[in-house]
Parts: sequence; structure tokens; C-alpha cells
Amino acid sequence: MKVLVVGANGQIGKHLVKFIQKSDKLEPRAMIRKQEQASFFEDLGAETAVVDLEDDIATIAKAADGVDAVVFTAGSGGHTGKDKTIMIDLDGAIKTIEATKAAGVKRFVMISSFDTTRKAIQEANESFAPYVVAKHYADEWLKATDLNYTIIHPGLLTNDEATGMVSAASEVNRDEVPREDIASVILASLENEKSIGKEFQVVKGTTPVEDAVNSI
Amino acid sequence: MKVLVVGANGQIGKHLVKFIQKSDKLEPRAMIRKQEQASFFEDLGAETAVVDLEDDIATIAKAADGVDAVVFTAGSGGHTGKDKTIMIDLDGAIKTIEATKAAGVKRFVMISSFDTTRKAIQEANESFAPYVVAKHYADEWLKATDLNYTIIHPGLLTNDEATGMVSAASEVNRDEVPREDIASVILASLENEKSIGKEFQVVKGTTPVEDAVNSI
Repeated sequence: MKVLVVGANGQIGKHLVKFIQKSDKLEPRAMIRKQEQASFFEDLGAETAVVDLEDDIATIAKAADGVDAVVFTAGSGGHTGKDKTIMIDLDGAIKTIEATKAAGVKRFVMISSFDTTRKAIQEANESFAPYVVAKHYADEWLKATDLNYTIIHPGLLTNDEATGMVSAASEVNRDEVPREDIASVILASLENEKSIGKEFQVVKGTTPVEDAVNSI
Repeated sequence: MKVLVVGANGQIGKHLVKFIQKSDKLEPRAMIRKQEQASFFEDLGAETAVVDLEDDIATIAKAADGVDAVVFTAGSGGHTGKDKTIMIDLDGAIKTIEATKAAGVKRFVMISSFDTTRKAIQEANESFAPYVVAKHYADEWLKATDLNYTIIHPGLLTNDEATGMVSAASEVNRDEVPREDIASVILASLENEKSIGKEFQVVKGTTPVEDAVNSI
């Protein structure tokens, strides 16, 4: 099972490509924006595809050609302006969904933010609300497709070392979670069809990742 | 037939409320953001509803209570940042669509921008592209509803005096168009059921507005 990781050069993306490369059943293809980001993945022995999320759907679809699943873990990041929130978190995500359909791929895992409900938009402060709106519509767009989706809503991401343990459910109390554990949750979701059609929040916890995903 | 004009205090909105107030068959309700914007509309004898587009769907739905049609002609304007592009042009528009459904209103006229196709997004420059994305998804959202919609794509808006003449078709050459003529096109669309389910571009031209709308 080959997995296109969109946003592979991000912090979750790098952990995820490593985990997929180490797994028995899965193989990664790292989608990166610039050729100079390739060496990290080539050193792992992973395939790369150089595509900018501001490219068109057909170009993204070429990167998805022949894969069995697509993971969207790209994000505009905290250092860019709200223009990139629109171009990457909203339009980049939806173009990736459309590219997945165009490539005939059925499985899609979306890394969303902790709470993308309409209520969360209304409660967000002025600075954060545009990001929540972008993620909300990307999630809504995905749910309206007939893709086999999983939507993962991580808590406050940290660079703490992985514990292999999380708390996952449709609603959990807001808390931190290591990026590396989110990468494990993505891997476990790809490996467990029970996660199809589900969306869930994940924070640090005491349940082994595979059990947590299996009990969603 | 009562018409809620969302964005009534905008330049097109003010022309439109005047035209609706003067018409025989239609009555306006001007949705405005601040109470201090009300006097213009009260002087016309028009009803007002004070609602911020950053309010929730239920609040917008109250403004739409009892109307027969909703016109969305709000825009974040050129002076605001890309955060308002997300909050108003995207989320404000979609919340208005959802509020229209929630209020049981069937007729919706959207004032879009000249070209909101996927191709237009790819061809737009970096500064303009986020706006096109926002308008694209608002239009797509509307088309996916079962509302009786009309989507109007005006050319480059000017404050030139109205001519009463336009050129309108699914595709026309990009050109200027007076805001006041766009207000007439909206009125003609509200008065002509043939515009339901249609979207069209409008620029200045030589065809009387009512004929142009009737021939779409």
C-alpha cells in the first residue's frame, strides 16, 4: 500500500514518512514543495514528488498517480500570512481532495485542527478564526465526497518525545500531544479500516495508539 | 416580495435598496453592520436589520425571517486584510446561504466576482488569488444547495453613472461596469424567474438590462 504524504517536509510529515518507510505493509511517497527538500527523504530511501500546493489539481493528481492512500498534513504554518491560510489550508487541501478523486484513489486521511466545528469558529479569537474557517471548509468538503476518509483533530502540537500513548475520541478535553504520536495515529489509521468514515480528536493519554484508533 | 439585502451599506447595496424601494412588486430589508448606518435606509423608508456577518448563522437567519429572497452583495472591501477575505467573502457568504435555508427562504442572488473558476484562481496573481478562492467556494457552496440561485459575475466595478444597458452572458470580455447598473441587473434578476439556476458575467454594453437578464 503506497501512501502519498502531502506536506511531507512538515514536522508531522517527516515523522510519518519515517514510520511508513519502517512499516511492513506501507510505502511512502513524500510530496515536497522544493527539490532541495528531497535529500532527507532520499536518505530514508523514500520516493519523492516535487509539487507546490499552489499548483493546479492536475499537477497534484500526477503526484497521487498509483498510490493507495493520500495523507494531507500540510499547513501554512504560523509564520505566513492569512493569504497562505486561504491558499494552502483551504484551497491546497481541497485541491488535494479533488486530485485524489481525479487519480482514482479512494483513501484519504486529513490532519485537521483540534476543533473545526461552526461553534469553534464563532468562539475563536479574531486572529485564529480565519484558520479555523479554512480547516472547517476543507473538512466539510472531504465529508461531502465519497472518499474513504479519516479526519484527525490533534490537540496542541508539541515536539515532545513520542510516548506511543494517546487519548482519542470524537470529543476529548483540549490538551497537548506530541507531533510524533500524531504521526503514529496516522499510521495506525491507515492500517485500520475501522477508522474509515470517522473523525476524532487526539491528545496525550494512556491508551496505546493502535488500541486508541481501533476503539474509535 | 420582500428582499433581504446583505451588504446594504456597500456601494451596490445602497443603489439596490433604492431600486427595490422604488419598484412596485418588491420591498427591501437592509441588513447593515452598525446602527449608525441605519439613517440612510430609514430616510428611504426601508426596513433595516442590524447584523454583523461575523455573527452566527442563527442571528443572520433572524434577519432573513419572513423575506422571500436574499441578495448577498457584501464584500470585505479593498482596505481590509486577507483575514476579512476569509471571514466575510467566504464564511460570511456561506453563513448567509445557510441562514437563508434555515429561514426557509428559497431565492438567493449572489454577487460574485468576474471569474471565480478554478482556472481564474490558477491565473490570478498572488495578491488577488485569495479573494478569488473565497468567492469560488462561496459560489460552489451555493450551487450545491437546492436554493433557487442566481450568481452574477460583474466586471470591473466603477462609480460611473448608470446607462441602463449592459452586456450579459455566461462569458463576456472583461470590461468595466457601473455599480448602479449591477444593482439594476440584480433587480431584474429578482423580477425574472428565468434567471434562476443561472450564473452570468456582466459588463457595460448596449442591451437594456431587463432584456439582457431575460436572454441569459
